[in-house]
Amino acid sequence: MKTNLNRIKKDIEELSKFNATPGQGLTRFSLTEEDRGARNYIKNELLKLGLEVYEDPAGSIFGRKKGSDDDLPVIMIGSHFDSVKNGGNFDGPAGVIMALEVMRVLTENNVKTKYPIEFVGMIEEEGGRFGSGVFGSRAMAGSVSIEELNNNKDNEGISMAEAFKEFGFNPDDINNAKRNPEDIKAFIELHIEQGPVLENREKDLGIVDFIVGLYNLKVTIKGRPDHAGTTPMNMRADALVAASKIISHIPNYAIEAGKGTVATVGALSVKPGAANIVPGEAQFTIDIRSKNKSCIEEVKNKVIELIQKETDASGLDVIIEEMLDVKPVKMSEEIIKSFEKNADSKGFSYIKMLSGAGHDAMVMAGITDVGLIFVPSKDGRSHCPEEWTDYEDLQKGIEVVYNTILDLGEVL
Amino acid sequence: MKTNLNRIKKDIEELSKFNATPGQGLTRFSLTEEDRGARNYIKNELLKLGLEVYEDPAGSIFGRKKGSDDDLPVIMIGSHFDSVKNGGNFDGPAGVIMALEVMRVLTENNVKTKYPIEFVGMIEEEGGRFGSGVFGSRAMAGSVSIEELNNNKDNEGISMAEAFKEFGFNPDDINNAKRNPEDIKAFIELHIEQGPVLENREKDLGIVDFIVGLYNLKVTIKGRPDHAGTTPMNMRADALVAASKIISHIPNYAIEAGKGTVATVGALSVKPGAANIVPGEAQFTIDIRSKNKSCIEEVKNKVIELIQKETDASGLDVIIEEMLDVKPVKMSEEIIKSFEKNADSKGFSYIKMLSGAGHDAMVMAGITDVGLIFVPSKDGRSHCPEEWTDYEDLQKGIEVVYNTILDLGEVL
Repeated sequence: MKTNLNRIKKDIEELSKFNATPGQGLTRFSLTEEDRGARNYIKNELLKLGLEVYEDPAGSIFGRKKGSDDDLPVIMIGSHFDSVKNGGNFDGPAGVIMALEVMRVLTENNVKTKYPIEFVGMIEEEGGRFGSGVFGSRAMAGSVSIEELNNNKDNEGISMAEAFKEFGFNPDDINNAKRNPEDIKAFIELHIEQGPVLENREKDLGIVDFIVGLYNLKVTIKGRPDHAGTTPMNMRADALVAASKIISHIPNYAIEAGKGTVATVGALSVKPGAANIVPGEAQFTIDIRSKNKSCIEEVKNKVIELIQKETDASGLDVIIEEMLDVKPVKMSEEIIKSFEKNADSKGFSYIKMLSGAGHDAMVMAGITDVGLIFVPSKDGRSHCPEEWTDYEDLQKGIEVVYNTILDLGEVL
Repeated sequence: MKTNLNRIKKDIEELSKFNATPGQGLTRFSLTEEDRGARNYIKNELLKLGLEVYEDPAGSIFGRKKGSDDDLPVIMIGSHFDSVKNGGNFDGPAGVIMALEVMRVLTENNVKTKYPIEFVGMIEEEGGRFGSGVFGSRAMAGSVSIEELNNNKDNEGISMAEAFKEFGFNPDDINNAKRNPEDIKAFIELHIEQGPVLENREKDLGIVDFIVGLYNLKVTIKGRPDHAGTTPMNMRADALVAASKIISHIPNYAIEAGKGTVATVGALSVKPGAANIVPGEAQFTIDIRSKNKSCIEEVKNKVIELIQKETDASGLDVIIEEMLDVKPVKMSEEIIKSFEKNADSKGFSYIKMLSGAGHDAMVMAGITDVGLIFVPSKDGRSHCPEEWTDYEDLQKGIEVVYNTILDLGEVL
């Protein structure tokens, strides 16, 4: 292989040192001391390669390698280097290090491509500090405004605009982060799977064909908070019993819809929430994801019908609020084919699969052709200190992207 | 009627003035300024009647009317005058005022009974300040120790022993509050129903035949907190889906057991509790009440079997903890008969019913014959500012108790 396992390992280990919570997983919020440390490491590695290194007003780091026809649109590769609170060393950095290693191999092998290639390392993908994620890619897509920078604040009340200024960026320039779609030929991201599928099926890689659509509801059932001892069963309006009947059916609806559709009730709260009081209110979320808009619709319609049936009783009221409605996104067929060809030629096993999470790739798909490749997550875990991907697996993913860059970039 | 509606109304209104949260329901915690105000009002009313007024070391107020044979055991009537936080004017005071009015009518009509009659007004029945309820009756039953007074503390860290001392009682004397069961012939309490049954069935009174037994479980289901987007439905260990399947069946088990059996899941919490994470833990309470121990057993056994069935899946674990196991308590047949006879003779409508809550009567049943009579609660509400009982309904209950005292006390 052209890529270098030791360098990949060293990158992960070095980046993991820029961490606000050593011993309790990795916490690297955007525009902090830890961001600065990781940023300097990355910029330094890019500078060593003789690339044109710059940052956009959204805090994304770029390292540009000229193409032989440098007016052609760029091929961009990378991911984000911020983390959730008490997360792991791989969610984000795996893809940033992929891009770093690809740039190194291109440089050290003196590879000339027709198209320019750009490394990108983004921040605030997780929304860990300021609450609103996929920030770097949204800025490139032109959907971040100065109002967002002023309104989004961290736990200490510092706005993103203030944090940018303090960090040395000019928030008033944020519109300049927008990229002309015509100037980007493709975006390729590598990410950890954050799920158990690759490990369970013993595959080296996942080639994403769709990023799922996402539909979120918030349901509030209002009943009557009666005394648990003195209120006969037939005189109750129990919000939690109604909620339970609904929640217990939701997995079946997802399974019936098929095609990898998933549905989850992740949060539920009960009021007043005392052992001896019949629940007067139950509020819960419903998260439905699928690559097929029609599967999402199917689950959504069944769920809403069931909610209405179970709350159509004396004393029960229901409020259903639509919180999020994101369409499924298709990955580039050309890039998928290149991934498959290059994995095959290296003898790496893979499956085509859905991405159940969004990632910067989802946003970038709004302005360019996108490829997304997954490497396995041990025990399917992520966003926790135990998050782990074997370096050998990560290297396989990087090797495939490297070869796909040769295809897309048109080696001279 | 011998009892006086205006006096009853005045008592409720006067007692409701001793309130730490005017405008936000009644809050009268034990051994506070509000307790002192209500206590002085009650003692003053008893002294006006020429009764022998004293307080026991548990802070209960007594007003004793001699019997013609004053060595005979006493008939005790009353309830508690403390409240929950932001409660209402009737839970407790209704029974205290019943006893006050009965004593007044006995006195103004110069009624002589063979047995001595004692008014009692107790505190900390709700456990609102120190956490451990039915305090006055437990002290009479001899089940309160100096350790409890030292250990039970309010929100400010003041122990019950310190509060008693500050208030003018000697906590070291607490054992002297214990009454010899042979010295009590009966205890009669009047209480608001705290449920909707009397109002729904348009009855004046509820004559309690059983105070329900109470069985409480805490159930903790542990699953795996996976990503809601990336974890296929068949690879999940969803603690909330398992909990929902259980909770949705519990009402049916109570209905199948019949005989007024009730079962409630009042509290449920989910961890981590985020919309996009499969629940890794669900913890909930189960509260089962019935007059029949065998009905409680039946529901309990079905629930535990179901819990085991629903958690017998890969990745799920369960912990079932028994929190409370209180046996049903039967009320005195003789007092029930007297209640019925006197309600009939006055033309008041009534039903025999369960008490779903414990009350001081439950504790007193451990040492003597007990009668418990309910008056209607508007909309079944209690422990809230809206708690209400029409004064006319309260008077009917008092009138029945008065006549029952004549029966039990053996008018000369």
